[in-house]
Amino acid sequence: MLTKKLLMIPGPTPVPPEVLQALATPMINHRGPEYAELQREVVENCKYVFQTSGDVLVFPSAGTGGLEAAIVNVLSPGDKVLSVSIGAFGDRWAKIARTFGAEVIDCAFEWGEAADPQVVDAALRANPDVKAVLVTHNETSTGVTNDLRAIAEVVRAHGPLLMVDAISSLIATDLQTDAWGCDVVVAGAQKAFMIPPGLAFIAVSQRAWDANANAKMPRFYWDFAPMRKYMERDQTPYTPAVNLLFGLRVSLRAIRAAGLQASFERHARMGRAVRAGAQAMGLKLLADPDHASNSVTAIIAPEGVSVKELRKRMREEHGITTAGGQGKLEERIFRIGHLGYITEPDIIATLAALERVLMELGLPVAPGKAVAVAGEILSGRKQA
Amino acid sequence: MLTKKLLMIPGPTPVPPEVLQALATPMINHRGPEYAELQREVVENCKYVFQTSGDVLVFPSAGTGGLEAAIVNVLSPGDKVLSVSIGAFGDRWAKIARTFGAEVIDCAFEWGEAADPQVVDAALRANPDVKAVLVTHNETSTGVTNDLRAIAEVVRAHGPLLMVDAISSLIATDLQTDAWGCDVVVAGAQKAFMIPPGLAFIAVSQRAWDANANAKMPRFYWDFAPMRKYMERDQTPYTPAVNLLFGLRVSLRAIRAAGLQASFERHARMGRAVRAGAQAMGLKLLADPDHASNSVTAIIAPEGVSVKELRKRMREEHGITTAGGQGKLEERIFRIGHLGYITEPDIIATLAALERVLMELGLPVAPGKAVAVAGEILSGRKQA
Repeated sequence: MLTKKLLMIPGPTPVPPEVLQALATPMINHRGPEYAELQREVVENCKYVFQTSGDVLVFPSAGTGGLEAAIVNVLSPGDKVLSVSIGAFGDRWAKIARTFGAEVIDCAFEWGEAADPQVVDAALRANPDVKAVLVTHNETSTGVTNDLRAIAEVVRAHGPLLMVDAISSLIATDLQTDAWGCDVVVAGAQKAFMIPPGLAFIAVSQRAWDANANAKMPRFYWDFAPMRKYMERDQTPYTPAVNLLFGLRVSLRAIRAAGLQASFERHARMGRAVRAGAQAMGLKLLADPDHASNSVTAIIAPEGVSVKELRKRMREEHGITTAGGQGKLEERIFRIGHLGYITEPDIIATLAALERVLMELGLPVAPGKAVAVAGEILSGRKQA
Repeated sequence: MLTKKLLMIPGPTPVPPEVLQALATPMINHRGPEYAELQREVVENCKYVFQTSGDVLVFPSAGTGGLEAAIVNVLSPGDKVLSVSIGAFGDRWAKIARTFGAEVIDCAFEWGEAADPQVVDAALRANPDVKAVLVTHNETSTGVTNDLRAIAEVVRAHGPLLMVDAISSLIATDLQTDAWGCDVVVAGAQKAFMIPPGLAFIAVSQRAWDANANAKMPRFYWDFAPMRKYMERDQTPYTPAVNLLFGLRVSLRAIRAAGLQASFERHARMGRAVRAGAQAMGLKLLADPDHASNSVTAIIAPEGVSVKELRKRMREEHGITTAGGQGKLEERIFRIGHLGYITEPDIIATLAALERVLMELGLPVAPGKAVAVAGEILSGRKQA
């Protein structure tokens, strides 16, 4: 009990005590008036965080299910899709599209880099029959955020649907679903929503609904049309994850009360602080600095340091859980999550522990330097 | 606050306070050692409740997702499937199979009746190329439990896979996955598992794994193979619904400590008490008495009584939520759930309230009679 734990991974993220308490609300009838009121409120607040006046559908599912739902609801087997991938999650989405029979054209970038809108433009010029473009807003495996606004402009100019994986970006980074013309935007509970995993959220534009009417990929559980029909009367076609919605009600009220802009700024500040702190210890970052993420920072393991050993010491000696690398970066990087219910003291504590661990591993780290640099940024006295 | 509420519907069912408290456990890393220990224990106890030594897979999903997963993992488009349906949920499963391209042969029975194993036998004789048989163990829409053991014998004699929807039966009614030769058995969190909705459990036999290797229906989220591969090292391919597993750990420990047999007996007793109580009020039951459910009782609304009005009075005047009818039974029946964390005093209170409501609606009910009859059964002094 006396080992206080800090969960510094890019999801599932820590859950505020008020939300944990709400999860423990006694069960209600999912076809009754109390539930209707609950769903109505959370959907309304979901629209706020998606910055949309269109539909937001809620599925009992992990985020990956939301990505599958996006594919099967707007495409038919044989449809051409452009996959703009900058890491493991972009690759996963392309794999889902292929699984259901889409013809996927890869537009992949080096892990650690952001997608270049001009390259996307060229790919769309070369493939004028592309029906949809898949883009990861924030790539959790590399800590890189794409310039979605610029990519959206390119996609809009060509005409295909714009499908966005915003699982680790929404609420942490500005994403204007309607204003930028995003057609399907997928988010997940266990990131900046500050609730436990088990819900996927999907914003659907009118253009996506038009595509849905003719989309032939097989679907039942993920089918948007009955989900919208039921949600119009504040129900769902099958049993919703009621207690996660109890938690969501509390977290969305808090997010809305503070305002999205404040959330973006707080996340940006935390990202800057972690990056500056890591660099002050002499560590190298994976992400292109112009596209570094508000949600997660990928740090390259110093020469001779085992990621496994470093993470183990962080966890066992300091009670701080960090994430390892994914896919081809597994042994090369470790990641610090800084999204959702992470506060500035958590950032400071993490950097201080990392300084200690690196020193114990024999690296020439000046203790306190990273913390000082990060503290300046977090206090708002230094911008970068 | 002072309106104490009783949730007497066939799911989501009430959640014990110990489980509610466990839901509020702080988040942990789903790739770390604490999570591995959690998953290992709940999977082990899932095998106990499924009465299997084979695999039990856990998906973040509503029960309907589990039904879809069962279909797409063992079948290919064009495969012939026999749908043994006795109500709304049986029909839904057949619809899912059709959606993914199976050729479904309907073997449907009157709502309120159980499936006749001899009719199933004849259907399989007439269709020797059937690849799988879909059976609902307990049909939630009618309160009828099929004689799964007898149906399994028939199916085994012919050779196809036996796929069982056990969403509202598992833990409430004996289901011997291995001994009876069931190949895919689907269960859901929000029923007798006594946890909130958001998890589907699927037992998979070796024969089902063999079918899975050649099954061509498209799948990614529901794919059994990577799920098993990850579960072998106590993880899942994508983020699991961690806090529901915290709750599940507590509920399964309790179920295992008391023993499955005790659970079956308790549920059977509650079912008998509700049925006898309803009949003592002069009400008619929908289900064939030889196949009445341990989990839910469907009661035919008396002549001139509106189901809506009756349920409204139960809820508003007594704080007791009951369920309406589904599909073609919507205005004809109401249902009382008696599974999961429902105790004998809840049954008594529900019957007493129903007596009052019927009297207020002008029906000739002798107050106390239903309660007396039910009390005899619940006390174990009367068997039927």
